[in-house]
Amino acid sequence: MNADTPAAAPELRSLVAAEVERQVKALREEMETKIAEVRERTVDDAATIVVFSSDLDKVLAAFVIATGAAAAGLQTSMFFTFWGLAVLKKKGAEAGPKNLMEKMFATMTPSGSETLDTSKMSFFGLGAVMLRKMMKDKQIASLEELIAMAREMDVKMIACTMSMDAMGVSQQELVDGLTYGGVATYMADAVRSRVTLFI
Amino acid sequence: MNADTPAAAPELRSLVAAEVERQVKALREEMETKIAEVRERTVDDAATIVVFSSDLDKVLAAFVIATGAAAAGLQTSMFFTFWGLAVLKKKGAEAGPKNLMEKMFATMTPSGSETLDTSKMSFFGLGAVMLRKMMKDKQIASLEELIAMAREMDVKMIACTMSMDAMGVSQQELVDGLTYGGVATYMADAVRSRVTLFI
Amino acid sequence: MNADTPAAAPELRSLVAAEVERQVKALREEMETKIAEVRERTVDDAATIVVFSSDLDKVLAAFVIATGAAAAGLQTSMFFTFWGLAVLKKKGAEAGPKNLMEKMFATMTPSGSETLDTSKMSFFGLGAVMLRKMMKDKQIASLEELIAMAREMDVKMIACTMSMDAMGVSQQELVDGLTYGGVATYMADAVRSRVTLFI
Repeated sequence: MNADTPAAAPELRSLVAAEVERQVKALREEMETKIAEVRERTVDDAATIVVFSSDLDKVLAAFVIATGAAAAGLQTSMFFTFWGLAVLKKKGAEAGPKNLMEKMFATMTPSGSETLDTSKMSFFGLGAVMLRKMMKDKQIASLEELIAMAREMDVKMIACTMSMDAMGVSQQELVDGLTYGGVATYMADAVRSRVTLFI
Repeated sequence: MNADTPAAAPELRSLVAAEVERQVKALREEMETKIAEVRERTVDDAATIVVFSSDLDKVLAAFVIATGAAAAGLQTSMFFTFWGLAVLKKKGAEAGPKNLMEKMFATMTPSGSETLDTSKMSFFGLGAVMLRKMMKDKQIASLEELIAMAREMDVKMIACTMSMDAMGVSQQELVDGLTYGGVATYMADAVRSRVTLFI
Repeated sequence: MNADTPAAAPELRSLVAAEVERQVKALREEMETKIAEVRERTVDDAATIVVFSSDLDKVLAAFVIATGAAAAGLQTSMFFTFWGLAVLKKKGAEAGPKNLMEKMFATMTPSGSETLDTSKMSFFGLGAVMLRKMMKDKQIASLEELIAMAREMDVKMIACTMSMDAMGVSQQELVDGLTYGGVATYMADAVRSRVTLFI
């Protein structure tokens, strides 16, 4: 500071401090707005898998990836739609009243995770038996173990209500602890996900 | 302000303001550069679906998801490649001159959205008839309605030119209003998308 | 500058500088923290493809997309799992000792990229022959050319160790230059990717 302006100094200081504060405040607000705009364009630590297939091999892959995603710290959600809905069927559940076409569909689709068949080498179910045996021999988790793991890891399982409606499947026929929703429910999770797969 | 410096005040104020502005400007530029760098690493509100399959069930799922994405406010693009190209075939279009192999391919692939078959329970097309009937009974939109909805919602439909070339399919055989492009066109949309699926 | 305050300039400058530095330091730190938080929520220029299928048409699509992603400047990784593992089998490789079930699996899955079959119109392999011929006629890169391109473009190829274990496939049976890992290895690439596909 210059000795000629000792009196001016305190008031100048406060003038400067006030002006800096004013401009810095404006800058902070401006930057916060810009950062918020960029944040709108980011994603959460989340993963979303559409399980469309009911093939044992594909459903296994879906659960291996889902539990892997959950283990990596991602909020993971699985959307079971179309054939994939069969994975969620409760063993021995009483089916509600169905019309003829719904009955045919129910007969021709798997009755739960234990009756899924493979996408290749099916041989009337032999592929599924082989695959399950090979995995057991190698002490790899079975589908039912993977489903239980996924539940313990808080993987969200959504049953597609449009598919349920189309196929005449009621909530009573499905396992407990599901979320129910349509494509909008799926999309709400998907838009904020790092990983989005269709299996 | 001090009464001893009434003359100095306004000019001092503007002097201080100018100097603060000059020095704050550097910080603003620095922050803006950092924010722009982070912005480069973000995504648009967009979704991109590769439609590889021509199975009725999968194509239906693709259009349900595409219209769902558009309804959620995402710019949505569908890339029809390989078997999926058949979805875009114009009803009763005159096919251009084809060599023997192209003719065989044309005979063995669907001739448009109305002749797609299901991936499972085909029974020579019975699966598709059943699926369409069940959806109609439940007043779920048909594939053709979904395609019309997608168009109204400005879903971009890209016909894969490499597939067209490989299968000898001309633009005259496809419906109107398409974008034409290869994997680079697809990728330009995909890299900025929140949701990327292969169906 | 006002001619009445020429002496004030240097000291004012340093006064402002000191005050700006003091106040701005706090702002810089605050903004840098916020920007870093947002950056955590962004993605790299990367793409990750799960190759689950061993169908020639789907594997071709996977490599077209992978090389397209690499050409677009994305770090690209392919995770070969389940049936997709067959793509990586070395031609004429000596298989290690296998149990009966592993032998059956080896017999029924392709012995490398050259023996993959199509997902549709298989006719005991005729579909693959036709597809390869049509692509050659149109001078489209063959699968083996695409694999070589992918390698030249530094596409990372991960062999799924869980699948190898389940099917009794050893590293000696697979081509060179692979990365070995499980779902955690895949997920580490996927979480930071712009494009994630399951084929």
